[in-house]
Amino acid sequence: MQFHLNGYHPGDPRYSDPKDAIIPSPTPRPLPNKCDLVIVGCGPAGLNLATQLSKFSEITTCITELKDDRLLVGQADGIACRTLEMFQAYGLASQIIQEAYQISEVGFWKPDPDQPNHIIRSSKIDDIENDLSEMPHVILNQARVHDHFLDAMEKSPGKLVPFYSRRLIDIVVDRSIEDYPVTLTFENSVIHPQPSERIETVRCKYAVGCDGARSQVRQSIGHELIGDALNQAWGVMDVLLVTNFPDIRLKAIIQSANEGNIIVIPREGGYMVRLYIELDKLKEDERVDRDHITTEILISAANRIISPYFIDVKEVVWWSVYEIGQRLTTAFDDRKDGNEPRIFLAGDACHTHSPKAGQGMNTSLIDTWNLGWKIVHVLLGRSNNWLLNTYAEERHAVAKELIDFDREFARMISAKPKSLENPDGVEPEEFQKYFQLFGQFTAGVAVQYKPSKIVGDTKHQDLAQGQVIGKRLHSAPVIRHGDAKPMHLGHCVTANGAWRIFGFADNCEPMSPACGIRNLANFLAADSSSPIKIHTPCGSEIDSIIDFRAIFQIHHRKLERSKLHPFLTPPKGRYGLSDFEKVFCVDHAPGKNIYDTRGINKQTGCIIIVRPDQYVGGILALSDFEGLANYFSKVLTKA
Amino acid sequence: MQFHLNGYHPGDPRYSDPKDAIIPSPTPRPLPNKCDLVIVGCGPAGLNLATQLSKFSEITTCITELKDDRLLVGQADGIACRTLEMFQAYGLASQIIQEAYQISEVGFWKPDPDQPNHIIRSSKIDDIENDLSEMPHVILNQARVHDHFLDAMEKSPGKLVPFYSRRLIDIVVDRSIEDYPVTLTFENSVIHPQPSERIETVRCKYAVGCDGARSQVRQSIGHELIGDALNQAWGVMDVLLVTNFPDIRLKAIIQSANEGNIIVIPREGGYMVRLYIELDKLKEDERVDRDHITTEILISAANRIISPYFIDVKEVVWWSVYEIGQRLTTAFDDRKDGNEPRIFLAGDACHTHSPKAGQGMNTSLIDTWNLGWKIVHVLLGRSNNWLLNTYAEERHAVAKELIDFDREFARMISAKPKSLENPDGVEPEEFQKYFQLFGQFTAGVAVQYKPSKIVGDTKHQDLAQGQVIGKRLHSAPVIRHGDAKPMHLGHCVTANGAWRIFGFADNCEPMSPACGIRNLANFLAADSSSPIKIHTPCGSEIDSIIDFRAIFQIHHRKLERSKLHPFLTPPKGRYGLSDFEKVFCVDHAPGKNIYDTRGINKQTGCIIIVRPDQYVGGILALSDFEGLANYFSKVLTKA
Repeated sequence: MQFHLNGYHPGDPRYSDPKDAIIPSPTPRPLPNKCDLVIVGCGPAGLNLATQLSKFSEITTCITELKDDRLLVGQADGIACRTLEMFQAYGLASQIIQEAYQISEVGFWKPDPDQPNHIIRSSKIDDIENDLSEMPHVILNQARVHDHFLDAMEKSPGKLVPFYSRRLIDIVVDRSIEDYPVTLTFENSVIHPQPSERIETVRCKYAVGCDGARSQVRQSIGHELIGDALNQAWGVMDVLLVTNFPDIRLKAIIQSANEGNIIVIPREGGYMVRLYIELDKLKEDERVDRDHITTEILISAANRIISPYFIDVKEVVWWSVYEIGQRLTTAFDDRKDGNEPRIFLAGDACHTHSPKAGQGMNTSLIDTWNLGWKIVHVLLGRSNNWLLNTYAEERHAVAKELIDFDREFARMISAKPKSLENPDGVEPEEFQKYFQLFGQFTAGVAVQYKPSKIVGDTKHQDLAQGQVIGKRLHSAPVIRHGDAKPMHLGHCVTANGAWRIFGFADNCEPMSPACGIRNLANFLAADSSSPIKIHTPCGSEIDSIIDFRAIFQIHHRKLERSKLHPFLTPPKGRYGLSDFEKVFCVDHAPGKNIYDTRGINKQTGCIIIVRPDQYVGGILALSDFEGLANYFSKVLTKA
Repeated sequence: MQFHLNGYHPGDPRYSDPKDAIIPSPTPRPLPNKCDLVIVGCGPAGLNLATQLSKFSEITTCITELKDDRLLVGQADGIACRTLEMFQAYGLASQIIQEAYQISEVGFWKPDPDQPNHIIRSSKIDDIENDLSEMPHVILNQARVHDHFLDAMEKSPGKLVPFYSRRLIDIVVDRSIEDYPVTLTFENSVIHPQPSERIETVRCKYAVGCDGARSQVRQSIGHELIGDALNQAWGVMDVLLVTNFPDIRLKAIIQSANEGNIIVIPREGGYMVRLYIELDKLKEDERVDRDHITTEILISAANRIISPYFIDVKEVVWWSVYEIGQRLTTAFDDRKDGNEPRIFLAGDACHTHSPKAGQGMNTSLIDTWNLGWKIVHVLLGRSNNWLLNTYAEERHAVAKELIDFDREFARMISAKPKSLENPDGVEPEEFQKYFQLFGQFTAGVAVQYKPSKIVGDTKHQDLAQGQVIGKRLHSAPVIRHGDAKPMHLGHCVTANGAWRIFGFADNCEPMSPACGIRNLANFLAADSSSPIKIHTPCGSEIDSIIDFRAIFQIHHRKLERSKLHPFLTPPKGRYGLSDFEKVFCVDHAPGKNIYDTRGINKQTGCIIIVRPDQYVGGILALSDFEGLANYFSKVLTKA
């Protein structure tokens, strides 16, 4: 899709008329007096959490925002592969891919040794290594990411719509009140005739502060962001421009000899570009304070860095100046003195990054992707409260790691190239090596949660070497047995809050007495210690809490439906219709065998437990029914 | 996506609440007095034409429908590969693929030789041959196909919304009136207080009858559908069912020994199935006339055919009874006595098929896909009126061919299996062979338009053996040079009414003096006989009439932007921004080289002219500038 040719217009680019592309604001309405969950803030973290919760009509959720409407321009734009895997779980990935810019390559530029005030390309490399994810790395403005969430949450059972123009004044937890111990007080800035109506209070069970780096929720619970600023000011601009710089439609990282550095991020629609421009290399008379930076100063700096090329900016769509700072909150929730958590922090309220490693929006999104299903489990009584402690434990460790990565990345990006005058500078080759080495971080797939009640031990890691316990399930192609459709196994882990048991078959004849899948199906269907029997409430669909799926090594055409255990085509719904999407076979096309690509033991097979957020919760022997029952008995309550 | 588990609900399945999934009817409003084009009928043919026209805000179009609102259930459901290629041009393919059922395999069933009243599977085969199209063959109910068009046409510059509840009474052409010679008279069945207001007249330049097999437009211009009925009644049912038939999620073709035949078409959402059930094999007491057929009779017949398996139908979503009949109209337009055409027929108004080869909706869609850009060209003065004659010429020939194919297909589907008692029957193997042989027909890619002013001669066919002149451009993977994105070349032929000149480079050093692309770019950019200079109106974008794109054999990383002819990154829009989507390189991954897969001469390269509807209009030598100029001078007017 090409758009923004004659100027940037916010909203869905599928509308030809920009006036139609912007969704009208929701009708102002009062906050409810009570609900299960209040989410403060409509950034990526808040909207993702609301979208996850909107899938459950039994839960009442309320999401508020200080601003008076949805975002229309600017802020973040990078969507890591891992984040698109998450969007796939909501059914949103194909729409986002259609309108986003896809990063395929990165161009690295350095000073020309023969003419150091000119830049030359040092190399081009692939942006992500092969088979890192089935999803691409794309760029789309944060406002459109918001729009997709807003659309999905309104279409879901919860039909959630944000309450805009709400300033949080206070948040109080009274642990003596059992049912709704949290009270939030807001000022409604939609001016009312009666001043008294401007103040609204909501009582709830849990509250989540997704209200950004200056989080009022964080301040209310006495935490702060701690960390150092590097005092490196950068300017960021979304622009429409004419240029002779060759890599303007590639991600490009430019180090000049003495004028500073630029990162070029091409944007959706084929014409717009984001430029990150280093500011501490400003000329003497431009070294003004932040408030006096202008787009002219930024453009002039960019032209000096990019020489012998030029940029001629035709429209500045959005711009900002920021100082790099990696900061981390002192805690992710309000636990104290052994109390259970009632208030959580997520996104920029917990951690801030430099924008250039693309960690800000992506880390924020995965924060609440981690928190969402846990809140659902506790609110619906599927798990006890302890589950909520794992949010802070898991995400604090990840945030710390990512901030360390980001600090090193930002340092390199801001460094001068190594030269006689700059012996402490960074060799372009060194930077490029680092860039490739940390591809897993930037793609979002490096995250590994530590062993806990919800992440099993590594005793049987060798049964599936390519599916790392604590990391996200690494999807691979399979053939769905029922309809012979080639697809990605990971795409059946949708955002419905269910756990998955993937049974990878051993090398026995499928459904023969020795077949491990047959025995596992027998156990899950009928045994009194079956976790599916124990944890699925009466009247709920058989796959709503734990969703059992099997993968066979045999060619799909050689496996007859009549041979399958009936538990693998379970009856569902009011009519008892069979679900034919539980069984998969290996894709025998070259390079696509999931046993080979993910190191699964062909002789013994295995069980892989996948959490509702797509992370590998455990790997067990295919016959380890006791281990399976134990795993879930620790996590889930009896139904 | 899984949906319809607890019953069928019309509308967008992305909505959780069925009440929200249905788009409200448009507000009733009067027809305009005048417009450029009136389309009668909101079926696939009419909506596709309206969607094509909606891309042009300069053209006023009006689309009417007898029914009082959009379709909600039933009718056609097959979307051929070729049709999805067309949807890709509108940007709709990914949405449709997401919600549709994808046919991967076909199961063939025949009487068990050992027990002839039981069926057994004779084989499974791939539904389409490898590399027939980059698009899958999918199944989605016609109502949703309509919805996607309705959505797209309202978002387009024309912002078209149908006028429902309009019954066409009369259509008159007065050729003495130059500007708006066609007058249509409608009765508005939205009851008005004043009976006089129920009659509305619209004057227009052209009218298109997309009003189905009983077309009022066709009758008005004195044409009729001619052809034979085979007197084979079939029942069709969309159902939710429980069954032990193994191939219920595959397309399955079942021939029983004595009880008749069934075709199983799995449907979107994972649970629904369409069954085509032969009715002339009804038992004696069931051989009732069409009006007395009931769903019970159909289900009972299905159970006899499918024995030893059973179906237990839980919900009949929609059903109908039809007799196979292949009929063709006597003419596709109202030309008489050398007059230019003013009224056109398309879709079922011109031809009817048996539903089982999946030709009905697909052929209708490609009818108006052929007509749409021609009307645009004539209305905007890009071509003279003769261009409209080619619609009837091209589509009549195709309809004839498809009806012959369909007749043979339907005969085979209805035939008894060959046996001692039925020596004239069809061997299941023979049917299967026919099915594979005619895969190109069912996929919609067999259509080949004959040489004419818009389809060149075959003199240089050997320069690109896999791109057949008169057939649709067969897409193949390429790497877009500007952003290194792997993509399909065919996907740049969007539905914007433009012609494409694809220059496939020879084996000279790109942009060296001998390079054919360099010389072609020089010619197109600057020569006084350049068709782009001659046919593009002043003030229009350089690629709006003829869109020049180049494909190089070199690896994309070895081709520098500075080497490219400036005409290959043309300035566009009010800012003169460069368009970086005109240049492609070969994808060097195994099996993806477009020169190899499409038989393009590597030494000489070639020019491929592609029509606005994606059909290959001509193949020329890369240096044949005169031929190129001649081609367009015949088709297009001087700007």
